[in-house]
Amino acid sequence: MQAARLHEYTDEMDEALEIDEIERPEIDRSDGVLVDVSGAGWCQTDNHIVEGMWEEYVEQDLPMTLGHENAGTVAEVGDEVQLVEEGDPVICHPVQTCGICRPCRLGEEMYCENQEFNGLTTDGGFAEYVLTNERAVIPLPDSIDPTEIAPHADAGITAYHAAKKATADLNPGDTCVVIGIGGLGHIGVQCVDAMSAADIVAVDLKAEALELAADLGVGHTVDSSEEDVASVVGDLTDDAGAQQVLDFVGRDETTELGPEIVAQGGDHHVIGYGGHVHEPCQTLVFGEMSYQGDLVGQYTELQELVALVERGDVELHTERHDLGEINTVAERLEHGEIEGRAVVTPP
Amino acid sequence: MQAARLHEYTDEMDEALEIDEIERPEIDRSDGVLVDVSGAGWCQTDNHIVEGMWEEYVEQDLPMTLGHENAGTVAEVGDEVQLVEEGDPVICHPVQTCGICRPCRLGEEMYCENQEFNGLTTDGGFAEYVLTNERAVIPLPDSIDPTEIAPHADAGITAYHAAKKATADLNPGDTCVVIGIGGLGHIGVQCVDAMSAADIVAVDLKAEALELAADLGVGHTVDSSEEDVASVVGDLTDDAGAQQVLDFVGRDETTELGPEIVAQGGDHHVIGYGGHVHEPCQTLVFGEMSYQGDLVGQYTELQELVALVERGDVELHTERHDLGEINTVAERLEHGEIEGRAVVTPP
Amino acid sequence: MQAARLHEYTDEMDEALEIDEIERPEIDRSDGVLVDVSGAGWCQTDNHIVEGMWEEYVEQDLPMTLGHENAGTVAEVGDEVQLVEEGDPVICHPVQTCGICRPCRLGEEMYCENQEFNGLTTDGGFAEYVLTNERAVIPLPDSIDPTEIAPHADAGITAYHAAKKATADLNPGDTCVVIGIGGLGHIGVQCVDAMSAADIVAVDLKAEALELAADLGVGHTVDSSEEDVASVVGDLTDDAGAQQVLDFVGRDETTELGPEIVAQGGDHHVIGYGGHVHEPCQTLVFGEMSYQGDLVGQYTELQELVALVERGDVELHTERHDLGEINTVAERLEHGEIEGRAVVTPP
Amino acid sequence: MQAARLHEYTDEMDEALEIDEIERPEIDRSDGVLVDVSGAGWCQTDNHIVEGMWEEYVEQDLPMTLGHENAGTVAEVGDEVQLVEEGDPVICHPVQTCGICRPCRLGEEMYCENQEFNGLTTDGGFAEYVLTNERAVIPLPDSIDPTEIAPHADAGITAYHAAKKATADLNPGDTCVVIGIGGLGHIGVQCVDAMSAADIVAVDLKAEALELAADLGVGHTVDSSEEDVASVVGDLTDDAGAQQVLDFVGRDETTELGPEIVAQGGDHHVIGYGGHVHEPCQTLVFGEMSYQGDLVGQYTELQELVALVERGDVELHTERHDLGEINTVAERLEHGEIEGRAVVTPP
Repeated sequence: MQAARLHEYTDEMDEALEIDEIERPEIDRSDGVLVDVSGAGWCQTDNHIVEGMWEEYVEQDLPMTLGHENAGTVAEVGDEVQLVEEGDPVICHPVQTCGICRPCRLGEEMYCENQEFNGLTTDGGFAEYVLTNERAVIPLPDSIDPTEIAPHADAGITAYHAAKKATADLNPGDTCVVIGIGGLGHIGVQCVDAMSAADIVAVDLKAEALELAADLGVGHTVDSSEEDVASVVGDLTDDAGAQQVLDFVGRDETTELGPEIVAQGGDHHVIGYGGHVHEPCQTLVFGEMSYQGDLVGQYTELQELVALVERGDVELHTERHDLGEINTVAERLEHGEIEGRAVVTPP
Repeated sequence: MQAARLHEYTDEMDEALEIDEIERPEIDRSDGVLVDVSGAGWCQTDNHIVEGMWEEYVEQDLPMTLGHENAGTVAEVGDEVQLVEEGDPVICHPVQTCGICRPCRLGEEMYCENQEFNGLTTDGGFAEYVLTNERAVIPLPDSIDPTEIAPHADAGITAYHAAKKATADLNPGDTCVVIGIGGLGHIGVQCVDAMSAADIVAVDLKAEALELAADLGVGHTVDSSEEDVASVVGDLTDDAGAQQVLDFVGRDETTELGPEIVAQGGDHHVIGYGGHVHEPCQTLVFGEMSYQGDLVGQYTELQELVALVERGDVELHTERHDLGEINTVAERLEHGEIEGRAVVTPP
Repeated sequence: MQAARLHEYTDEMDEALEIDEIERPEIDRSDGVLVDVSGAGWCQTDNHIVEGMWEEYVEQDLPMTLGHENAGTVAEVGDEVQLVEEGDPVICHPVQTCGICRPCRLGEEMYCENQEFNGLTTDGGFAEYVLTNERAVIPLPDSIDPTEIAPHADAGITAYHAAKKATADLNPGDTCVVIGIGGLGHIGVQCVDAMSAADIVAVDLKAEALELAADLGVGHTVDSSEEDVASVVGDLTDDAGAQQVLDFVGRDETTELGPEIVAQGGDHHVIGYGGHVHEPCQTLVFGEMSYQGDLVGQYTELQELVALVERGDVELHTERHDLGEINTVAERLEHGEIEGRAVVTPP
Repeated sequence: MQAARLHEYTDEMDEALEIDEIERPEIDRSDGVLVDVSGAGWCQTDNHIVEGMWEEYVEQDLPMTLGHENAGTVAEVGDEVQLVEEGDPVICHPVQTCGICRPCRLGEEMYCENQEFNGLTTDGGFAEYVLTNERAVIPLPDSIDPTEIAPHADAGITAYHAAKKATADLNPGDTCVVIGIGGLGHIGVQCVDAMSAADIVAVDLKAEALELAADLGVGHTVDSSEEDVASVVGDLTDDAGAQQVLDFVGRDETTELGPEIVAQGGDHHVIGYGGHVHEPCQTLVFGEMSYQGDLVGQYTELQELVALVERGDVELHTERHDLGEINTVAERLEHGEIEGRAVVTPP
């Protein structure tokens, strides 16, 4: 089968991956599930993997097929699988968890001690087939097209997960600042809106992103290339600040906004990465604020996000590309030229 | 009356404050309470105030009497005060809150929009009398000596507040690392122990501090001048890390321990200050960890701490000094020469 | 001034209250606030008070002016009041709290140990003027008409309070059953909808109530006079049941639905009253369900509800009546003839 | 092998079970685990099962081997089991969960949609061997004797689970009333003590039970056959009541204590069963109290309880009996003649 694989780390996105002809993976456990991929989203994290930014955090054995936002049709199942059968449409949580370790048992499956992460630590879905397990697949209702929804498998649940943590602390009348209305952020604002009655302030540098936010119903948009974010947030909140900030960018210039825009007792959620958090301890203490790192969401959060999609509360902006165009996609994302999300459709 | 007052910011602790003869304050509101101070604790924050480190965070009008850890006897009350009367022994929460603004109404009184903070924004308790209000005083049972307990008014509730936040996320079998077993930290370990069944690991550079921790029942102590903290914590937790870290030091070399010792999903509480938090966003994301700033505890937390003292769950290590020795106290604390806490006893 | 007062407990609603000419109340504390009442809502609890159902729970000194859902204009303030001044439009939380006791300090103001409850333990707002205090009044924005919003002072925050507790445990895809779409319930469904992405099932006996629910956007309505509620809920939830149930009726026939419609781990909130909770302990244990009593909401929850009204998320269905018609209102509510809420407008 | 089996429901405890010679169970799934039972606790629920009280709640296929508190040594494992191997000492959570359904994925494993419950819905551990699965077994440290700890598999985690829910809402200075200091209650008081700094009040009818409570460090004991529980609790709490009540008895005369002893906003946890909850809705509303049913604890809670045992925070009072004496055990428990817990030791 065809698969887009990383052979060595590089900063040149136009030669990020190679299209190889490899063996179709085989099920070797009773809970294995082989999925015929219909769509796989390309993510900023794929760029970071290509650059080698994840090498020091996890083990990676190159060459490796990338692709962690996968959806498709079940092609084959292990002999004890009950949840799905051949022909079922599914979306794949990127992480195959063991279900046995204590974090799994607590429902904190992203901390699974025996996990495999498709497209990060094992072969992913930029290929005709991807091998995963029963605990990673969610059956889809007929009303949802797997290709259309694929990016929710990572971009979606990452945005949802952060939004869920934030909305737990947002009362009606509170303010939530969302920084970066791109692939994740445009999902994030919809999730916050669906799950709370907080006022949302969307911040971005690009006019198109702010228009997208406005189209999605966000009440206040701030062009950070022209306006002073802190003073706008101050005006909107009687100088109290925003109870929650979702930072989908994670550069130095966005994390440093925290102390100026977060209300006392609030949180600056760090979801995007690339930059640093750098502040005096005294600033965190005085504002009793946190910098809270947010990882990919759980399997159950992907279920909840699918429910939001079914309700019509979250829509995804996507564009589709053949597997052969994958390096063009990588390069365009690197230059900020993709609105919403790009989905790769293997043959 | 005599009062130890700050006239100008300085780094010279031997001339930090001057003993002035000033007017005894007068009650000017129906809820005013005048307290005859029997003891007032000296705090690391007093050193920071003297150095001018709080000037950019709050308004300070010099000269000002310092002292925010106050206890004594009620000398006079405003005409609508119900809670206490002349002669009652009390401990004073350092913050006089309004009880009207939204944070007060939520019970988040440290974010009061109309607060005065004795010894930080208005005259404090290194004096014969301190003026405060009904919402700041807690009547003490006869079994407790006000002078002995004074440091709980700030050191105590700050340690308690952080411990309470941490224990909310600590299950039996989990690990809590406490960094810095000084004036706050030695209270912190006792609070964590009383309110959870977590395993505590105490970290300090000084042998005396670690002995104090061991005396207080802490199971594991780590001398960070000789041992590698991360590898000790790794060994004790099967490489999972500590679910919660309480950093009562807040220097660069303690905050940078966070990613190495905090378990995924855990928090590094920043209570001490002086240094910075500085980490890549990716590290926070991958570990789903936070740097959580912790402020002084609420009034109700001071009530809870008094309950712990009554139960015998928390003991305070103090030494007493006359008002005239106050600059010696300031200097000795600056050089790390005070075990536990120093209490100043006005005439 | 004119005031509608209860002279003795009775079951005859057509002679519930008498219109008396009494003295206008006078401010006797520094935090007192006298409000010129523009509207006061009539509540099912007023019927219960008239019947004497509250006599064993609180102290009542007859004759007493009823009316605990009050809004109007500030007529006069005590000499230390800062929050409002003469002429300000306000809505009045029904409870005057002390701000000093531990429950007040925790933000749990409904448990205030020194409270007065207008219209329940002290004179209320079915009168030209009502006396309250600074901690009970919320200034209103110009865009909101005090008369229109008055019922939110009790019906509104009671429904909001229950909805807020329920939505804390409602994920997207979960189900919330709301029983009774009357004065409280029609606010409750709007609050659940605004603060969560749960699916709402509205249950009532009356076609008009179910039509109102549908008009407010509720997806599923059940006519409990014709349909079997348990089987409808079972069908809608794959037999899992509803994670949360809000019972605004509180009769035997609604509380007994609990075990049949609440999902394991869920709650049956009891807000309406009149009947009993009666179940085998084993049923509660096996379903790990609770019967959770819900009281009136806090001051801060009234602030949050006002924010929902400003956002346009909650609309109130009201009808207006002169003070002289008050017993007609009492009688019509007794017979279930009022859709939404009746507001009495003193001269 | 020998097994003590229920052939028909009966109220005669002296002929509750029969000792049959049956086939040793065989592993039929890749995750199966066969345990050589060294000890199995007898529980009040076993009496209830014998009486047929569970027939309407779950499916039971008689004859069935009872016994849901099992510990022993792994005798054989399915071919994909990783967690344990032959010879490992283990304690068995009574419920075999699927790890696939949404409740399992949320960590709410007691609500598993595909569960088997040893000794309740499938054969249990009053036998030489019991068949369970990988997700139900917890490896034990060498320091712990499986026979000694067996009752923690149900009595222990049920008490722990309730205690954990209660302590989440208990601050230092708060009060927790524990009703019934028997097999579960004597574990419950130790758990509350280890995980909180609340004041515990133990209530029982029997002097031996109250002595046991006192020996375990409980500060206040109340003999409900002689003292008025409500007035004692009132005196101890300044009439505020207890923030949390753990009712390990669950009879009408204990549940009716709730409104008299629970503080506003508090919970009456129903763990024991046999009686009813019966109160006016108005009482629940006015006290904003709940009756909260509590089920068996999760797998992870059994891990936490094992950690408490290892720390020395919880000790179990047990007596041992041969399999042949099992009906005598049943009868003695029925008559309240067992202090602590009886453990049956199969050959």
